Amino acid sequence: ILHVTWDAVTAEKGGYEHFMLKEIHEQPKAIRDTLAGRIKEGLIDLTQDLSFTEADLKKFDRVHFIACGTAYHAGLIGKSVIERLVRIPVEVDVASEYRYRDPIITPSTLVVVVSQSGETADTLAALRAAKKAGAKTLGITNVVGSSVSREADEVLMTWAGPEIAVASTKAYTSQLVAIYLLGLYMARILGTRTEEVLKKSTEALIQLSEQVEGQLIEAKTDAIQSLAKEIAKHEDLFFIGRGLDYAVVMEGSLKLKEISYIHSEAYAAGELKHGTLALIEEGIPVIALATQHAVIEKTISNIIEVKARGAHVLGFGLEGDRELKKSVDRVITIPDTLPLFTPILSVIPLQLLAYYTSVARGINVDKPRNLAKSVTVE
Amino acid sequence: ILHVTWDAVTAEKGGYEHFMLKEIHEQPKAIRDTLAGRIKEGLIDLTQDLSFTEADLKKFDRVHFIACGTAYHAGLIGKSVIERLVRIPVEVDVASEYRYRDPIITPSTLVVVVSQSGETADTLAALRAAKKAGAKTLGITNVVGSSVSREADEVLMTWAGPEIAVASTKAYTSQLVAIYLLGLYMARILGTRTEEVLKKSTEALIQLSEQVEGQLIEAKTDAIQSLAKEIAKHEDLFFIGRGLDYAVVMEGSLKLKEISYIHSEAYAAGELKHGTLALIEEGIPVIALATQHAVIEKTISNIIEVKARGAHVLGFGLEGDRELKKSVDRVITIPDTLPLFTPILSVIPLQLLAYYTSVARGINVDKPRNLAKSVTVE
Repeated sequence: ILHVTWDAVTAEKGGYEHFMLKEIHEQPKAIRDTLAGRIKEGLIDLTQDLSFTEADLKKFDRVHFIACGTAYHAGLIGKSVIERLVRIPVEVDVASEYRYRDPIITPSTLVVVVSQSGETADTLAALRAAKKAGAKTLGITNVVGSSVSREADEVLMTWAGPEIAVASTKAYTSQLVAIYLLGLYMARILGTRTEEVLKKSTEALIQLSEQVEGQLIEAKTDAIQSLAKEIAKHEDLFFIGRGLDYAVVMEGSLKLKEISYIHSEAYAAGELKHGTLALIEEGIPVIALATQHAVIEKTISNIIEVKARGAHVLGFGLEGDRELKKSVDRVITIPDTLPLFTPILSVIPLQLLAYYTSVARGINVDKPRNLAKSVTVE
Repeated sequence: ILHVTWDAVTAEKGGYEHFMLKEIHEQPKAIRDTLAGRIKEGLIDLTQDLSFTEADLKKFDRVHFIACGTAYHAGLIGKSVIERLVRIPVEVDVASEYRYRDPIITPSTLVVVVSQSGETADTLAALRAAKKAGAKTLGITNVVGSSVSREADEVLMTWAGPEIAVASTKAYTSQLVAIYLLGLYMARILGTRTEEVLKKSTEALIQLSEQVEGQLIEAKTDAIQSLAKEIAKHEDLFFIGRGLDYAVVMEGSLKLKEISYIHSEAYAAGELKHGTLALIEEGIPVIALATQHAVIEKTISNIIEVKARGAHVLGFGLEGDRELKKSVDRVITIPDTLPLFTPILSVIPLQLLAYYTSVARGINVDKPRNLAKSVTVE
């Protein structure tokens, strides 16, 4: 008789050491699945998901993105996406603030709530308050049948599959995909972008999952792991970036906090000199993300400022970028895509960095102290 | 012959050990001076300062507050003030982000830039970009003849007098006064508040300078100084608050960073549990500000969360508040006023805390490392 020792949890992890690492590697699939069935003839088509008509969309004079934690960081990207593609002003709020600040909501406000679980207490309460105030509501969630999916007027599902690790990874990138789909679809209906531009954007969107796969090959993850071993020795560090890069480093910083317990803080690169620069001293790591062509040069001048104060700067920049390389101590490259879509690619090495730093510090990666996977209390 | 040793710098400090302490103590006067001549028959009257007509104000469907550092934190208060008093949606941006994010600006956008020196490079560039895009611009500045005062369409001066210390104190509270004046004046012209409410608000505004004086008596500052000696031993701490309290703790945290080099970070109290709670461990100081009646109970539940993880909680709450006292380790009280005006009173002990912590750590209070008083480079 052969006795087979079978460990359900290891099996569920599909050979990965932790759920978080498995979920990081599931991102190409999560991106593909979230796009699936939503592209027709090279254009975004959400008629199976949303019941918005052109008249409905034309009515909106304001969009609010409401979320917590990682989903809030997706909302920050949402602001750029909607404002750039359809020129409707967007406000982004953390749900626990939005609920109590008596926000200005009218029937021409589109309130987008983002929640992986669809049960986040503050987000759900904000959704209900927005509905009551007469807004049109749209939920972006990963769980079919969740409260958000049942209560929002419109629902755009992400198809990331179950996320077990407390630190969210594939849910975040899937939320970004949903936001890109929404923005491009609105731009198509409202006619704010030409068909040619929309088709080119859709092609770039389709490419992303393969690009992420390329970022997850061993040679690439090994480089991040070696960086993580250095980072793991520090108790404080800073992330900097501008524009979309700033939104992404906020997410990278949150990941690192959650699972490595390093006091990490993300700053708009141009804002550092208005105070926080006082904390920069010899040897402190500063992680600079610079992928947005329009502001790379400005970010580099902020990098030079922190280096002059002794910071050890790790640069994350686009493949082929020569300028960033010259000004940083080490560089990690990110594949090139349309600037608006870069966040999906630039967050990958930051997720890996948080993961390997957590491992190097011997922390329970999937269940960090004090945190719950979905926060169903206020 | 009698030789008198005369020290010009000490004389300028008016007997105070540092410019910052002198400037903290000058706040009652700065508040009075900024109000002077702007109240007529118990109502705010800015006809000597602004040329806005009712028709002009009715045209605005959006307000942008643009600033850097401490002035940005004043802008965050500005959002609540304008949205609550006149129900026009407000966006607040750091100038270095606003400039490059292609913001949606129309001729019905009022862009308010806030800069003590009136020469902050990013703010000035944002002002110019906003003008070019067709917005109406309003500058809040402390320096007559500064670039902001010359280039903005409308100017509302603060009368704080020269500020020498790098860490801004009296300029911030004067900016808040200017913002209250603007909000109440707009509410008067637009008729969004009754004369009775406006008169009551104006009375409360007039009282503030005396209330600040009461906060600066020795018994009060001694209590803060003893707290600072404890704080000075730590390298990391967190501030939490909700709504207006969140905006104020961002400023309190920045002060502490600038002059004590403690890695301090401010969080919306309800957002902590979405990640940063992982950093809360035995003995870490958490400074909780809870002055806003509508959310005190919610903040207290967040305080209980961090205390359960071992945090040492210093509560800053209103005189007469009984609930906060029960849930924190130490409490500092703040005089009561209208909720909207509390920031002027709640920032005072946080400024003092930063000051005394800096002194306890032996840092050059007035000239912390790496920082310049006014940032005239990008």
